[in-house]
Amino acid sequence: MKKYQVVGIGNALVDVLTEVEDAFLVENNIEKGIMQLVDMEQAVALYSKVGPSKEISGGSAANTIAGIAQLGGKTAYVGKVKNDQLGEIFAHDLRAQGAVYETPMASKDVDVETGRCLVLITPDGERSMNTYLGVTEHLSPADIDEAMMADTEWIYLEGYRFDGPESHEAFDKAIKACKNADGKVSITLSDPFCISRHREAFRDMIRDHVDLLFCNRAEMLSMYETEDFEAALAQAAKEIGIVACTDSANGAHILSGDQRWHAAAVPTDIKDATGAGDLFAGGFLWGLTHGYDLETCGRMGNIAASEVISHVGARPETDLKELFKQHNIL
Amino acid sequence: MKKYQVVGIGNALVDVLTEVEDAFLVENNIEKGIMQLVDMEQAVALYSKVGPSKEISGGSAANTIAGIAQLGGKTAYVGKVKNDQLGEIFAHDLRAQGAVYETPMASKDVDVETGRCLVLITPDGERSMNTYLGVTEHLSPADIDEAMMADTEWIYLEGYRFDGPESHEAFDKAIKACKNADGKVSITLSDPFCISRHREAFRDMIRDHVDLLFCNRAEMLSMYETEDFEAALAQAAKEIGIVACTDSANGAHILSGDQRWHAAAVPTDIKDATGAGDLFAGGFLWGLTHGYDLETCGRMGNIAASEVISHVGARPETDLKELFKQHNIL
Repeated sequence: MKKYQVVGIGNALVDVLTEVEDAFLVENNIEKGIMQLVDMEQAVALYSKVGPSKEISGGSAANTIAGIAQLGGKTAYVGKVKNDQLGEIFAHDLRAQGAVYETPMASKDVDVETGRCLVLITPDGERSMNTYLGVTEHLSPADIDEAMMADTEWIYLEGYRFDGPESHEAFDKAIKACKNADGKVSITLSDPFCISRHREAFRDMIRDHVDLLFCNRAEMLSMYETEDFEAALAQAAKEIGIVACTDSANGAHILSGDQRWHAAAVPTDIKDATGAGDLFAGGFLWGLTHGYDLETCGRMGNIAASEVISHVGARPETDLKELFKQHNIL
Repeated sequence: MKKYQVVGIGNALVDVLTEVEDAFLVENNIEKGIMQLVDMEQAVALYSKVGPSKEISGGSAANTIAGIAQLGGKTAYVGKVKNDQLGEIFAHDLRAQGAVYETPMASKDVDVETGRCLVLITPDGERSMNTYLGVTEHLSPADIDEAMMADTEWIYLEGYRFDGPESHEAFDKAIKACKNADGKVSITLSDPFCISRHREAFRDMIRDHVDLLFCNRAEMLSMYETEDFEAALAQAAKEIGIVACTDSANGAHILSGDQRWHAAAVPTDIKDATGAGDLFAGGFLWGLTHGYDLETCGRMGNIAASEVISHVGARPETDLKELFKQHNIL
């Protein structure tokens, strides 16, 4: 029996959430619904233009791990923060949720700060993200504890983490340690633009190592450079053991070998779409590591995603197990 | 015509909001519904025991000023933060709301941090506050800009600010500069325990300088050391030009000389009581400085308070003027 069910690796970020009108996105050349990287200067300039904000721990894989932990899963997270106030907040929130988080903090002397993501929420609930990676960009192979990677059933890799000088090497080290101990590898593609920045690396990794792929429709199309969704799904299913592809209000498609399932979306009043994909993966992975069939895993993912978009902030605020019970799948 | 309608002076804090069960308060000897001061060590110990949190700018008078600013009032705030991440967040949120905030930040070399308030929200929506004052305790007379105090119709003093070595002197300086320029002085009593720590100073200040008193029932009783609410109200009305005393679900009592009004509470689903009194004062002061009668000011206060307790966080998230219109008082 392994110590962990899922260990996630990603960008450790604190979200700075604020509401804006659509016109603000246009005026500031921000593409709606995606993540764009900004440097500290751009981050400060943009922050000075937005209204009052809230700070809530985020980071894509960290949100997923928080969801699994809230469900009672045995889980850990690897991602870099600095020993500053936002770093302390990030570490507290993850541990307080029940996840193990032991990545060494960068010291106060480092000249970059803990990363943050300025999340602009438009009236339709869509989020447009401006990420200052800060110290989290510098996650290095030294931060990967091979014993931890060997002691987990699954690792969960965040696509965004491909943006970093030593990140591919860090991922390789994690994958090797995990696979050598008969662990499995899951990955989320994170964002269509992130894919276009690293398409070859993604494709190689997926073909060679990935057992479970999380993505949404736009990412799937970007990955296989096609407009034909069905063709892309078919191709992915050929290359990967399990494919879980979300398609917003159309629900999620789960493929494994020749089999395919559809899990309907769970309707809700969308307040803030941040974290939808992250919590889909969280619910799905919890189900998978607790013996549920893939269709049920998809439903669990949809329920968890639905919870997180019903409020501002990308981590669950309602007992997810209770929600699973209300939907009669527990 | 003065530059400002209201200038507030108070403890500059970032709120750390988290949900707990009532049993947690009992186990940790935390008295429900009040504010208690903690040192950094106690703050860290308590923080390590609570679940995931959200960080939202707070501070009692700062919430009031944010409310007035959101309504379009000309307003400024005086309170001390450090040049650290939480200090930047506090400053951003207040300025982004439209308030002037020019208090010099304490430098990075100072060995205390920006103050914060750990707000424990129980299922009934009540909040119990644990405040680490940090650098905000050290607001000194040097931070009081006499020209600003002379250029405002009202100053608004936060009772909590009495907890600080040089605070009484700072308040004296502000009052003198304000009164010498025919400005008026309002104060909030903040908390029954805060009053018991400084009763004589409060009583002297009120008798000698205060034109408008904000308080709630418990504070009024503590102030005059009686259990007789009506007697306390009568005594206050004798000493102070305007008394605005809130009484939770019973609404607010407004007294001025021989006149008295009652403004009914505005019912809402209470999510987080933090900021109710602050926003009552904000709505009231905006009304008062925009020519409304005292009864209408009380109603505006109740509407603003009702908005802020309907969500987590102590600053308004809905357009308060729109709410006033919906209630047919604009």
